[in-house]
Amino acid sequence: MIEIERKFLVVSEDYKTNANTKTRIVQGFLNTNPERTVRIRIKGDKGFITVKGKGNKTGVSRFEWEKEIDLTEAEQLLKIAEPGSIDKIRYEVKVGNHVFEVDEFFGDNKGLIIAEVELSSEDEIFKKPEWLGQEVSGITKYYNSQLSKVPFKNWVEK
Amino acid sequence: MIEIERKFLVVSEDYKTNANTKTRIVQGFLNTNPERTVRIRIKGDKGFITVKGKGNKTGVSRFEWEKEIDLTEAEQLLKIAEPGSIDKIRYEVKVGNHVFEVDEFFGDNKGLIIAEVELSSEDEIFKKPEWLGQEVSGITKYYNSQLSKVPFKNWVEK
Repeated sequence: MIEIERKFLVVSEDYKTNANTKTRIVQGFLNTNPERTVRIRIKGDKGFITVKGKGNKTGVSRFEWEKEIDLTEAEQLLKIAEPGSIDKIRYEVKVGNHVFEVDEFFGDNKGLIIAEVELSSEDEIFKKPEWLGQEVSGITKYYNSQLSKVPFKNWVEK
Repeated sequence: MIEIERKFLVVSEDYKTNANTKTRIVQGFLNTNPERTVRIRIKGDKGFITVKGKGNKTGVSRFEWEKEIDLTEAEQLLKIAEPGSIDKIRYEVKVGNHVFEVDEFFGDNKGLIIAEVELSSEDEIFKKPEWLGQEVSGITKYYNSQLSKVPFKNWVEK
C-alpha cells in the first residue's frame, strides 16, 4: 500500500514528557537502494520484514509493505544484512489527533532525532508541537537505509 | 535455515514422462546480490518472499528463509523488483527416494533446463536419472537471480 508520511527534525527533548510508549528498535537492510529497500527490524520482542519503494515527487508518499516474522528469523536475517545497522529508541507521542513517532538514534547516528507523522492525504492538516523543527520529507540522506551506510557522525554538513 | 541442494543441467525431456506436478512460476528480485538475494515468487496461485545468503565453498549449502504472502501483495512487490524477471515451469519428478525439481525456462532463458535435488547432508547419496547432465551447483551464473540480469540468450558460452 501507499504510506503518506511527513518527516521532521526534532529541536528539543520535550517530546519525552508526553511520550505514550518507548520501544527499542534495531534494524538492518537486505537492500539499501531507495527504489526497493528491504528492511529487517527487531522492535521490542517482535520481528518484521519491510519493503519500501521510491518516494513520489514530494517525498511524502511511498509504497510500503510489511509483515511480522518470528524474532529468531529476524535475528538470522540481520546476520546477512548489509554492513551498518540502525539502533534507536522510538517514542510514540500523541499530539492533537495524530501520533508522532520520534526516533532517537544511537551509535554512529547519535545526535540525530527524527519525528514522523502518518497522514491520510498529502495535504492533511496536523498540529505541530513546539519541539518540531525543519521538515526533511523525501531527503534521501535521512532515510534509515542511507543512515546505515552514511551515518550522522560522518556528515560534513549537519 | 540452511538448505542443501545440488543443481544439474538436464539433457533430455524424458523427465516430463514421470513428472508428478507441473506449476508455472514467475519471479523477480528485490536484490540480486548473491550475498543476500531477495526473491518475490508467484507459484501457481500463491505468493512467496524468499531471502538467500551466500553459498558455502562447495556451493551446495546456503542460508534460505521463505514466507508465504498474499498473491496480490506478491504482484505489488514484483512491480518494484529489479528489471528482468524469470518465467518457468517447474516439474516435480520423484526418482528413487528423492524429488527433483526440474525448471524449464521461458522468455530470454528459453533453452535452459535445470534440475535441483534437496539433500539432508552434502554427501547424501541419491539416484541419478538418465536425463541428468553436468552438475552446476554453486556456479553463480545459473542462479535465478543472475539469470534475471544476464539471461541465457545473452551467454557467449553455453
